[in-house]
Amino acid sequence: MNQPLLPPIFHVQPVSAALDEQIQSVIDNKTKPLGSLGKLEALAAQLARIQQNLSPRADEVMHLVFAADHGVCDEGVSPFPQEVTAQMVLNFLRGGAAINVFCRHNRVGLKVIDAGVAAPLPSHPDLISVPVRAGTANFTLQPAMTKAELMNCLEQGAAMVDTWAADAQILSLGEMGIGNTTAAAAILASMMQVQPSEVVGAGTGASEQMQQHKAAVIAKALARIPLGPDQPLAVLQQVGGLEIAMMVGAFLRGASLGKLLLVDGFIATSAWWIAYALQPALKHYTVFAHQSDEQGHTRALQALQVTPLLQLDMRLGEGTGAVAAVPLLRLAAAFFNEMASFADAGVSNA
Amino acid sequence: MNQPLLPPIFHVQPVSAALDEQIQSVIDNKTKPLGSLGKLEALAAQLARIQQNLSPRADEVMHLVFAADHGVCDEGVSPFPQEVTAQMVLNFLRGGAAINVFCRHNRVGLKVIDAGVAAPLPSHPDLISVPVRAGTANFTLQPAMTKAELMNCLEQGAAMVDTWAADAQILSLGEMGIGNTTAAAAILASMMQVQPSEVVGAGTGASEQMQQHKAAVIAKALARIPLGPDQPLAVLQQVGGLEIAMMVGAFLRGASLGKLLLVDGFIATSAWWIAYALQPALKHYTVFAHQSDEQGHTRALQALQVTPLLQLDMRLGEGTGAVAAVPLLRLAAAFFNEMASFADAGVSNA
Repeated sequence: MNQPLLPPIFHVQPVSAALDEQIQSVIDNKTKPLGSLGKLEALAAQLARIQQNLSPRADEVMHLVFAADHGVCDEGVSPFPQEVTAQMVLNFLRGGAAINVFCRHNRVGLKVIDAGVAAPLPSHPDLISVPVRAGTANFTLQPAMTKAELMNCLEQGAAMVDTWAADAQILSLGEMGIGNTTAAAAILASMMQVQPSEVVGAGTGASEQMQQHKAAVIAKALARIPLGPDQPLAVLQQVGGLEIAMMVGAFLRGASLGKLLLVDGFIATSAWWIAYALQPALKHYTVFAHQSDEQGHTRALQALQVTPLLQLDMRLGEGTGAVAAVPLLRLAAAFFNEMASFADAGVSNA
Repeated sequence: MNQPLLPPIFHVQPVSAALDEQIQSVIDNKTKPLGSLGKLEALAAQLARIQQNLSPRADEVMHLVFAADHGVCDEGVSPFPQEVTAQMVLNFLRGGAAINVFCRHNRVGLKVIDAGVAAPLPSHPDLISVPVRAGTANFTLQPAMTKAELMNCLEQGAAMVDTWAADAQILSLGEMGIGNTTAAAAILASMMQVQPSEVVGAGTGASEQMQQHKAAVIAKALARIPLGPDQPLAVLQQVGGLEIAMMVGAFLRGASLGKLLLVDGFIATSAWWIAYALQPALKHYTVFAHQSDEQGHTRALQALQVTPLLQLDMRLGEGTGAVAAVPLLRLAAAFFNEMASFADAGVSNA
């Protein structure tokens, strides 16, 4: 398909370097050995650069979890049945899932978005119902969604950021969708131009045999639609997920509004990669939160030449890795804003 | 010297395995793929095992910063002058140092202990003054402290835990002392039986030339007193620091009282190693918080075959790496206590 034009709400500006010297000077004059806060110094500088001021903030953090079902589940790619997507959404709404616990303890706002769960869901103040369709089509047989549905997903993703994360300095995204590691692997195999087996992993716990089957299912789909990194929206439409497509829209909109983007694991990275291909300046706004234990994530981060903040062997999804990293961003802003300088404190410098 | 007998307050009991099966069962029944919280699952299990109950807590965390001066500074081993130790203690008391900011933001209690700072310090409610002497002797020429001073340090370290961390489930230790990377490197070279050059690093910012000089200074001291891992207290007395010796006492006492020990970077690890050599069950109570950028720390952790929680290229000291890891311990306890099980949530298991 021809690449549709990306509406202006998704345009991402490169970050200005105007304050870079002042930012570095603030960091270097704090009462500590030069460079001794390591990656926290880089995070503080990134926050200040994105916000273009010398009092960077990281207190308001919003986490959006996008949930949807996947037609490719018909191919037997997950050890969990598809109804678990809706069951887990109910678990989110009752506050019993990992992401609820993580958001509560790390003081992060949370909204759950029905991007296209197959089963009906009840109305609930924390559930935003904007389903584009009741799960994707089975992408081994036909496009996962239509072009119109894809654009609808992008716009809904952006609308969620405008509505729920307007005041947030940091936007964190997560997902829930049985079968979505298969969609994410299909996206990354297309975008990275590697064999599906190189980016397929255990997901929620697929056996070695099921992983080989997952790779074969993806290979079948990619043979039907040979697409590459120059057609990110076509890849997303053909093999993506509704939640993944909304995350693409949310990442683009978040960066367009000058928020720092906190990228979770494998599935979030597949969405991020599409967004990055569309708007390369997205990288300026991005922090990769954690290294997932899903093997395809390691492969993707290596290709991007980035080292994420946390390496905790996690592979739960929901955005748990992103929310786990939030306190590090807050420490980064805090040392920048609150530590004394050598001059303030009357401490002799080296 | 003969090893003095270690008083009973320092005896550390191995942790019981009685609840291990129940602990694992709680973790495995949470609504998440099996094992998908990675290292957080191991942390939750360790907290529950140490506390011997199925409602592990990590809310009360106390951080003690021990400060002291080092006679070996006479040898020119640091780019900062010795008076910076006292200046930084004043910075702690005014709340302007990195450790103040980190403790405030991560809701961790903080007390600063004068274990033997050379310059006089004012009285202040957050400063506990128990100096054993005004800095160590220059250990290239004579023992850093006497046997009596060593035992006094261990007892003061224990008393600080009894007084200030009685209610804490987690004990975190930090230090301040210009010259103390030299003492720590001397301890680790003795305990690991490696060349000083293998564990010497930049400290607060020593040049390559100064690092070579540091290694030569340590080699000179170790030639004077050839001691090994079977004499941990003698090593500590000969080349240790007053703050390091108090940390040894505090680690032992904390574990003896059933607290989880959060070990910071290079200097804290040198203190921990002495404590571990004295009471090997200490390891059950220990979490290594971060991988310091100080090269000797990498070497020591490799020898111990442990991977710490955080890899952030930090090398600031004060216990900043330990306090940075506290939110991860709290997430570990929180998922264990608060997440729904598959049965609670009515979610189908794989």
